[in-house]
Amino acid sequence: MSTDLVAGLEPVVLESGETLPVHVAYRRVGFGPLRVLLLHALTGGPDAADRPTNEGVVKGWWSPLFAAGAPFDPTRTTVWTPNLIGSCYGSTGPEPGTPFPALTPRDQAAALAAWIRTEGLRFDALIGGSLGGMVALELALLEPDRFHRVGVIGAGARADAWIRGANAAQLAVLNSPLPDRDAIALARQQAMLTFRAPESLDARFPDTAAVQAWLDHHGQALADRFTRESYIALLQAMDAHDIGRDRGGVVAALRGLRASLHVLGIHSDALFTPPLLRELAEAGRAAGVHTSLHWLRSPHGHDAFLIEWDQVDAWLRTHILIRAAA
Amino acid sequence: MSTDLVAGLEPVVLESGETLPVHVAYRRVGFGPLRVLLLHALTGGPDAADRPTNEGVVKGWWSPLFAAGAPFDPTRTTVWTPNLIGSCYGSTGPEPGTPFPALTPRDQAAALAAWIRTEGLRFDALIGGSLGGMVALELALLEPDRFHRVGVIGAGARADAWIRGANAAQLAVLNSPLPDRDAIALARQQAMLTFRAPESLDARFPDTAAVQAWLDHHGQALADRFTRESYIALLQAMDAHDIGRDRGGVVAALRGLRASLHVLGIHSDALFTPPLLRELAEAGRAAGVHTSLHWLRSPHGHDAFLIEWDQVDAWLRTHILIRAAA
Repeated sequence: MSTDLVAGLEPVVLESGETLPVHVAYRRVGFGPLRVLLLHALTGGPDAADRPTNEGVVKGWWSPLFAAGAPFDPTRTTVWTPNLIGSCYGSTGPEPGTPFPALTPRDQAAALAAWIRTEGLRFDALIGGSLGGMVALELALLEPDRFHRVGVIGAGARADAWIRGANAAQLAVLNSPLPDRDAIALARQQAMLTFRAPESLDARFPDTAAVQAWLDHHGQALADRFTRESYIALLQAMDAHDIGRDRGGVVAALRGLRASLHVLGIHSDALFTPPLLRELAEAGRAAGVHTSLHWLRSPHGHDAFLIEWDQVDAWLRTHILIRAAA
Repeated sequence: MSTDLVAGLEPVVLESGETLPVHVAYRRVGFGPLRVLLLHALTGGPDAADRPTNEGVVKGWWSPLFAAGAPFDPTRTTVWTPNLIGSCYGSTGPEPGTPFPALTPRDQAAALAAWIRTEGLRFDALIGGSLGGMVALELALLEPDRFHRVGVIGAGARADAWIRGANAAQLAVLNSPLPDRDAIALARQQAMLTFRAPESLDARFPDTAAVQAWLDHHGQALADRFTRESYIALLQAMDAHDIGRDRGGVVAALRGLRASLHVLGIHSDALFTPPLLRELAEAGRAAGVHTSLHWLRSPHGHDAFLIEWDQVDAWLRTHILIRAAA
């Protein structure tokens, strides 16, 4: 049911003008007729579904959605989950002490485009959350004939100054003289606050020690599994997100979309705020794209798309996981 | 018109049980009949009004409100602006390498109470913003007969987990092995994002470099004027804010208030969120306190009370700066 593969691909010409040889690690789960390309968020990876290993099961970031009867029931869907370039889960990414070019979500999409062209893949649906949503938009514009529906969760047409400010404060820590683990952990502590929302924390943490322990846990957990170089590369990529760049603006860019566009915002999102998602949906409509905009109602902020399974399940079934007419 | 003074006072018994000898630095501005005690926010100090020095004018944090014809016109009001203990602008605070006890806003209020008792001061109004609003609430409960009106701006009856989480992430940086300037600057960069709001930044910063430069400027500016020890002490004090502690809860605590309570929230506040301010006003009403709740309409988030002069001016004149009947 699951396999890891790496494809050798033609080099990608980056937006910076540099040429980068790339490889893309991905995982394929299920054998159903509905074909889905699913893109991970900032520090995610190919394990959206659980992965059994000799040491036990590695929990997938969308694990409940892959259960029997769930939207990604393996008899119903085949789901490809690649690792974005710049990350540290098998695709091309930065190595310690070695120069690595600045990436944009469009560059990350170009690497995926090279992969799916090489393999001749087409999909009923392309889905991404957060940074994955940014890359999904870019990929749907680079390869407009390979997707029927694009689902964008908690992301917009561009990174606004609020997002770039949050990233800048994390990058300042990541570029400080702190040791790797400390830098990753402290930057992640900041990030966790932007991923949640006031009501979410207040309901959960009775005292200062509890919220400190939670932040520390998440900081250490990321330091255990991620690299400083990839964290920097991915934040900088997110900063550069603007589908309208060199395309005459966002609306003009979206005129190049053939897929329908389905935006899922989170009402309490403190990072990718509702106005940014409304802006994307309005631009889609202005560009003549078939567009829907729905909202997760949740106290949990940005991370709601990794928490509110019932609502994500319903949105996927209603708007995304629909077999394209042949 | 302005003088700095330090009062020698009886020691304060802290909530922790420790006894702390304290002195309070303060500034008095104006000679008008309306007597106001004004408390600064986290990294503020006694200079709410501009201060002329040999090297030029030090800008006050509420400078425009002290102009001729403004709410704190010197012929209309006399304004006392003390420095909170734990801070580094003249009142008792931590020194590098020397142990200093953990403080709470109630402890900070106790030091102010000792000072105003010693000097026999009474006020028409007590006003505080952010941490200053927390201490104002505590002081009005410790010395209920010395104030007729209490104005609380951008603060609640307690620090919720959202605030304590933001503080925890900053404290993690401040407690890291980074040098003092770096630690202060990086913690401040995080804080600046919580003090503003998405719309505020997005309208102002066209690109990543601009938002980075703004964050860096504010980080460096605080490193120029603040100490790591005080930053830590004041964040920890804010964390401990709960007027209901050892008083049977917030409503029971507010039954001890004699002053009227005037809450000024900020609609876009990303740190001291609207629900927290509504909670305070509702508790005031439930306790039988004469309570008003008004809102600053601003894109600028928490810092709006240091930006939206016209609205703050109107609120002060309408609700706060009213001569008490003798």
